[in-house]
Amino acid sequence: MFTLYSQQGSGNAYKPRLLMALLGIPFRLVEINTYDGSTRKPDFLEKNPIGKVPVLEFPDGRWLAESNAILLHLAEGTAYLPSDAFNRAKAYEWLCFEQYSHEPAIAVRRSILTAPERAHLRTPERLAELLDAGNSALAIMEKRLADAQWLAGDAYSIADIALYAYTHVADEGGFDLSAHPGIGAWLARVASQPGHVSIDWQPGSS
Amino acid sequence: MFTLYSQQGSGNAYKPRLLMALLGIPFRLVEINTYDGSTRKPDFLEKNPIGKVPVLEFPDGRWLAESNAILLHLAEGTAYLPSDAFNRAKAYEWLCFEQYSHEPAIAVRRSILTAPERAHLRTPERLAELLDAGNSALAIMEKRLADAQWLAGDAYSIADIALYAYTHVADEGGFDLSAHPGIGAWLARVASQPGHVSIDWQPGSS
Repeated sequence: MFTLYSQQGSGNAYKPRLLMALLGIPFRLVEINTYDGSTRKPDFLEKNPIGKVPVLEFPDGRWLAESNAILLHLAEGTAYLPSDAFNRAKAYEWLCFEQYSHEPAIAVRRSILTAPERAHLRTPERLAELLDAGNSALAIMEKRLADAQWLAGDAYSIADIALYAYTHVADEGGFDLSAHPGIGAWLARVASQPGHVSIDWQPGSS
Repeated sequence: MFTLYSQQGSGNAYKPRLLMALLGIPFRLVEINTYDGSTRKPDFLEKNPIGKVPVLEFPDGRWLAESNAILLHLAEGTAYLPSDAFNRAKAYEWLCFEQYSHEPAIAVRRSILTAPERAHLRTPERLAELLDAGNSALAIMEKRLADAQWLAGDAYSIADIALYAYTHVADEGGFDLSAHPGIGAWLARVASQPGHVSIDWQPGSS
């Protein structure tokens, strides 16, 4: 069985939990606190030298880090990775966009505003810079979702899962989604998929 | 024929140029200056709403942005994307690492130090922060390359191409690679591969 090292509330850790729930892949969850130094201890750094969650431990003991790499690996051969080569390439494009242009603004602003351990980073300059960057990322999503149902091709894929993780909690980072009706409809579409689980879901809970 | 929208000196644009050279894929190169507003004009934003290079234009007129997405697409079915599922997953992991932990430090510090258009960003605080983050990324690469020939599995792959792009010019960002002999040997290994081309190479030049 897979083991997922995860942290409650982390969108990055939610991504593989959501995909494994949708795919019906059983896994064991190990909760790790990234704020108390647990992911900086030698045994965790052996699994992931970057010291972050999520990390997927395979049944044979090997490890895989990076949320979007885990999505790509688990989705291979399933309906969640487009079989058409161009649509698959667009899914890769959205995964890169998420890690470079979306997460560093939207997820980071949310963590700075909500995690007491990161309160020292709440400077007006930093918050303004992250707000601008996050709104630019949301505008790019809206451009696609204003007239498309899904991000990559015409079906729900890991591109949607990767972007849903932090977009659906963007309000906790101070982002106003009301100007983005395409994103709003898409968030509802993702949440209504059969087998969908929330960011709080853990295996064994219902 | 493919068209690549590229900028001389950009490591991100070098990645697909190097892979297409290795694969013998002919392409037309369109040089774009990201500093003079060319990538912010409507016709370019239509290709890539993020306004960055590289962008790959397909023979049928469709577009694909994000350097690592272009690598994944072009490498599919070739020796540059590992066929073993776990090694392929590790290639994904390194591509994510490159975009989240390596490029935003090493490439950004290089561009701040070398591009006159970005000179206003050269504050001591910013340079120190980027130096720390870049050195952490290099240490993670060294941990792997101290006793492995290649980043993902046991063969040259797009993981190496993605990380080579900015690591081989890290000195221009003020990074000292002398403490990382594994990285040094790996850089030489990449450069000695048959068909290798330099960051200055363009199709049609030899």
